Amino acid sequence: MDYGTEAINRHRASRGKVSIASKMKVETMEELSIAYTPGVAAVSMAIHHDKSESFALTNRGNTVAVVSDGSAVLGLGNVGPEAALAVMEGKSILFKGLADIDAFPICLGTQDNDSIISTVRNLAPSFGGINLEDIAAPRCFEIEDSLQDLGIPVFHDDQHGTSIVVLASVLNALRVVGKNINEVKIVFAGAGAGGIASTRLLRDYGARNIILVDSQGIIHRERTDLTPVKTEMLDSTNPDHRTGGLAEALQGADVFIGLSVGDTVSQDMVRAMAADAVVLAAANPTPEIMPDAASAAGARVVGTGRSDFPNQINNSLAFPGVFRGALDARAPRITTRMKLAAAEALAGLVAEPTPEHIIPWSLDPDVVPAVSHAVARAWQSEHAH
Amino acid sequence: MDYGTEAINRHRASRGKVSIASKMKVETMEELSIAYTPGVAAVSMAIHHDKSESFALTNRGNTVAVVSDGSAVLGLGNVGPEAALAVMEGKSILFKGLADIDAFPICLGTQDNDSIISTVRNLAPSFGGINLEDIAAPRCFEIEDSLQDLGIPVFHDDQHGTSIVVLASVLNALRVVGKNINEVKIVFAGAGAGGIASTRLLRDYGARNIILVDSQGIIHRERTDLTPVKTEMLDSTNPDHRTGGLAEALQGADVFIGLSVGDTVSQDMVRAMAADAVVLAAANPTPEIMPDAASAAGARVVGTGRSDFPNQINNSLAFPGVFRGALDARAPRITTRMKLAAAEALAGLVAEPTPEHIIPWSLDPDVVPAVSHAVARAWQSEHAH
Repeated sequence: MDYGTEAINRHRASRGKVSIASKMKVETMEELSIAYTPGVAAVSMAIHHDKSESFALTNRGNTVAVVSDGSAVLGLGNVGPEAALAVMEGKSILFKGLADIDAFPICLGTQDNDSIISTVRNLAPSFGGINLEDIAAPRCFEIEDSLQDLGIPVFHDDQHGTSIVVLASVLNALRVVGKNINEVKIVFAGAGAGGIASTRLLRDYGARNIILVDSQGIIHRERTDLTPVKTEMLDSTNPDHRTGGLAEALQGADVFIGLSVGDTVSQDMVRAMAADAVVLAAANPTPEIMPDAASAAGARVVGTGRSDFPNQINNSLAFPGVFRGALDARAPRITTRMKLAAAEALAGLVAEPTPEHIIPWSLDPDVVPAVSHAVARAWQSEHAH
Repeated sequence: MDYGTEAINRHRASRGKVSIASKMKVETMEELSIAYTPGVAAVSMAIHHDKSESFALTNRGNTVAVVSDGSAVLGLGNVGPEAALAVMEGKSILFKGLADIDAFPICLGTQDNDSIISTVRNLAPSFGGINLEDIAAPRCFEIEDSLQDLGIPVFHDDQHGTSIVVLASVLNALRVVGKNINEVKIVFAGAGAGGIASTRLLRDYGARNIILVDSQGIIHRERTDLTPVKTEMLDSTNPDHRTGGLAEALQGADVFIGLSVGDTVSQDMVRAMAADAVVLAAANPTPEIMPDAASAAGARVVGTGRSDFPNQINNSLAFPGVFRGALDARAPRITTRMKLAAAEALAGLVAEPTPEHIIPWSLDPDVVPAVSHAVARAWQSEHAH
């Protein structure tokens, strides 16, 4: 099937994917008097006296804004907010279908960080959470960091959704090959939102030997072209001070994680990895190396970002359950422990990982309950009194 | 019924009034590939190449943001954005129920005009229209004026929704009493959003003798306490240079329109009006004068803002049809001619006005089709080539 043509036809027929539904009828004057004036005045005053009641007396407690500036949409790049809207509507219906969360797409007419930050601050009273999406690195880091005091979770999915699924995949892949995360050498291709956040989460879980590679090669201390975020990563990556490109990085590596661009890993590079290599080539639509080529070159476990191969590394395994759990626990932010718990819960759903099955299927109905419970429990145990 | 208690109970049971619905299923990988990646990329690129396609390929063309800063909510005053959310959710379900418009409540965490303006600008790419709501005067005027170049309609309902219903009511009330709008003397109590906008629209329709009265009395040239907007009104109101308070203004007046506070008009004041006086006392919940008292004092036609008396002056007669028409015509703004057409269409729905029936019932299903067609036609005829 030509998914693009079919998608345009269906989107035009239905005029997009999201609509508003009403939870109360307003067909009689009595219904109107309860849902609107004069009855609603009492609801407003109850919230005015206790703002937390907005989570119980309006839909706020189940509402997430999917906020993008359209600067890094899928693999399409900086296509702008109107074009991003189609993608964010898709995200919204995934939130609804997978986690019964009411997510509304908000694509902003600005790519200025201060303007985005102040706009999201202004939007906060209407939402239970903010899902930042498809905002280009390194701007995404500053935006998310600046919004952690909002009192509702602000979660950049390209960072943390990716990092949770990557960690879960790595945990189960290492179970397959019988290696320990504290001891393996892990190489990331791509030091954007997903690569940086995944490096941090794997490090927080216990990984001690991670090499980050960007388009200019291995990130090391002699580089003079590093952004502040990449510079910060020097303290916890590349302990052996390796230099060179991806080929040099992969020599002897146990795990390759590709969050970069297609066709950038050769079979020779995979052959140079350690025995029982794990290759997660998640670039979309073309992986860094095709699965059959990676396997033929000796990789024992192979995953991609695609749904037509085994082991799909896909954010939709994480974000619905993470927000469901955070909203259920009314957590004001999403902590590292909550992300680690999400990854462990996701990995735990595969009782006996095999090379062909390290991670659940994207639409597996068990995923959201498991992830959301783990996330809510993590917040509660962190903040029990 | 105690509407307040009932409203709180029902809002708590349903957790508010608004939710998100999906127009496409995502239960299979194929559906996911059409609604989301990879198919959606083609939709995004189609919009990227022609931004107007966002109105056809996403839900944008049917979406309105109901934006408030919570500064002038119902008669409750400055209760803040969280409290306003309950009211804006009510507005949203009225949009849905009456005009099948997908309206999303956005209550902003700021009451600074520049911040509100820049936030609404940033939100614009996601919406087909902006309904500003319950923003205090005089700040509301600057905000709305500054946003007229957005390319989508920006309509402050407290101003224009009110003005349309007021004009429709006045037109039919004058038919009942057999007077001409060009000749009558009209007195407004209240020079806030509704009073100023109604004065302007009645003037644009042809009213030549309007007196505006605020809490300090008649607005006249010797006043030194006038806001810029009230000063601007001097050119087109109070042609006889009257001074004094509401009692002085009402002497010999044909029409009283109250958009102020309850219990401020006495029977003596009504007795001092011209024969066949029209009294539209729309303060909520307590009218400026109760209908029986006004009638007993000689008023021939009486209306209020309440649903439990005849002739309810209610914005819900205007805003759903106005936005439906503007969205259908894809009008980039709502012009004076569109508002005049809406008022005429609304008045025209009452074939033979009587003292007890000058305006349709709020939930009359004929209202939205009539108003929306008139509004769309007005835009098209104004911009036919």
